[in-house]
Amino acid sequence: MSPHTPAPPPTSGPKREPTARRASPRSELQRQSILDAASRLFIEKGFGGTNLNDIADVLGVSRTALYYYFRSKEAILEALTEDVTEAASALASSVSVRDGMPPEAALRQLVIQHATLILTHTLQFRVVERSEKDLPAERRAAAQAARRALLEHFVDVIERGVASGDFRAPDARVAAFAILGMCNWSAWWFKPDAGMPAEDVAKSLAEFAMRSLLRDDGRPPPPATMAESIGMLQEGLARLAEQVDASTRRR
Amino acid sequence: MSPHTPAPPPTSGPKREPTARRASPRSELQRQSILDAASRLFIEKGFGGTNLNDIADVLGVSRTALYYYFRSKEAILEALTEDVTEAASALASSVSVRDGMPPEAALRQLVIQHATLILTHTLQFRVVERSEKDLPAERRAAAQAARRALLEHFVDVIERGVASGDFRAPDARVAAFAILGMCNWSAWWFKPDAGMPAEDVAKSLAEFAMRSLLRDDGRPPPPATMAESIGMLQEGLARLAEQVDASTRRR
Repeated sequence: MSPHTPAPPPTSGPKREPTARRASPRSELQRQSILDAASRLFIEKGFGGTNLNDIADVLGVSRTALYYYFRSKEAILEALTEDVTEAASALASSVSVRDGMPPEAALRQLVIQHATLILTHTLQFRVVERSEKDLPAERRAAAQAARRALLEHFVDVIERGVASGDFRAPDARVAAFAILGMCNWSAWWFKPDAGMPAEDVAKSLAEFAMRSLLRDDGRPPPPATMAESIGMLQEGLARLAEQVDASTRRR
Repeated sequence: MSPHTPAPPPTSGPKREPTARRASPRSELQRQSILDAASRLFIEKGFGGTNLNDIADVLGVSRTALYYYFRSKEAILEALTEDVTEAASALASSVSVRDGMPPEAALRQLVIQHATLILTHTLQFRVVERSEKDLPAERRAAAQAARRALLEHFVDVIERGVASGDFRAPDARVAAFAILGMCNWSAWWFKPDAGMPAEDVAKSLAEFAMRSLLRDDGRPPPPATMAESIGMLQEGLARLAEQVDASTRRR
């Protein structure tokens, strides 16, 4: 058995409540190892080309053992969708509902949270992208609604930032898609064991996004108070004195 | 027949050379309509779940008509891979070999060209991402090499820009993936008929990428010449005069 192999089901019988199945950290770990193995197979062979036996084989357990956690491959796919798409949407709304948060802080937090979710669920995210069509109609509609909600959260925060003068973006929707794309694409390249922690990558992506949007026209604002104007005079005089001095010494 | 339906094959017989099949604009259009229809089916039903009859049915032509352009669904997939992945790599190298081009101009051109390629081949790009595993080993290796080459071109240009002081990027590879992700993800959201032309989206994405990377520490450089120092003094004095004047009038 591989280190990721789920243990046989507990002996307390098949009548346990679904909630109880997620109660212990151990059974949560086993459930996660099934989701990971299934994700790999769905990507490798397609959802249509994979069955529960394939998943049990990869994990080195019986189909009955698998049954304890998931009744069908459709149930696995639904769990994957729920874990990723809806978690993304929930995270996003938890940020954007805090209307008091300035757009810059809100967007930074949104990008870090979304990027972290993708970076810690790369396989699952790719499965969801690939297999959404195989979900039952109702679940598919829910997943699509969650994805749209996430997009709208990004668009809202960007539009708030443009309105406040903090951001510049000719088209808030294109900007939102650009940021989402940069986060989502990490599912295709990020390797958790390749040295750079997910946390650092998420911060880099957020920094990248913020710098793209933050307004900075390259010129400092004019001095706003008398003290600032005097500061400007002092700096100009000091610099001129240095230059005159240097010029005198050169002669 | 739909407007995208390929015409029946020319009557000059099955012995024409493959190059001749791409000679006329009309046959190129027909070939493209087959690639588009196949892309939609590969995405909808998976590569394994699609056969040549499905493609012929969608286009309303006979399997023989299809045969004139492609001998098998594998040949269609190879054509899609070649069209997209290798075109991307070719475009990239055409830019980056011009070593004389400053990093800023080179990267901008690279992003616009790559984004334009994706934006004008959204379906095909998604098929390639999804079905690469179904390619023959040799073609798969070629596609992967082309993709790596593209990444390296981006990394090279970014590293050149960091070395010259034009860009700041804590990690050139993460920056390259962020830019590629933003371009590649457009395959999942861009709708050619939704109003915004591909050209404008490509420019927006390039602008977004450039602003993320261009060094700008937010403070202007100190005045470099006596004339600039005197200019700074004049600006500070003029501003102070306005402020004193406003303050006097308020009393």
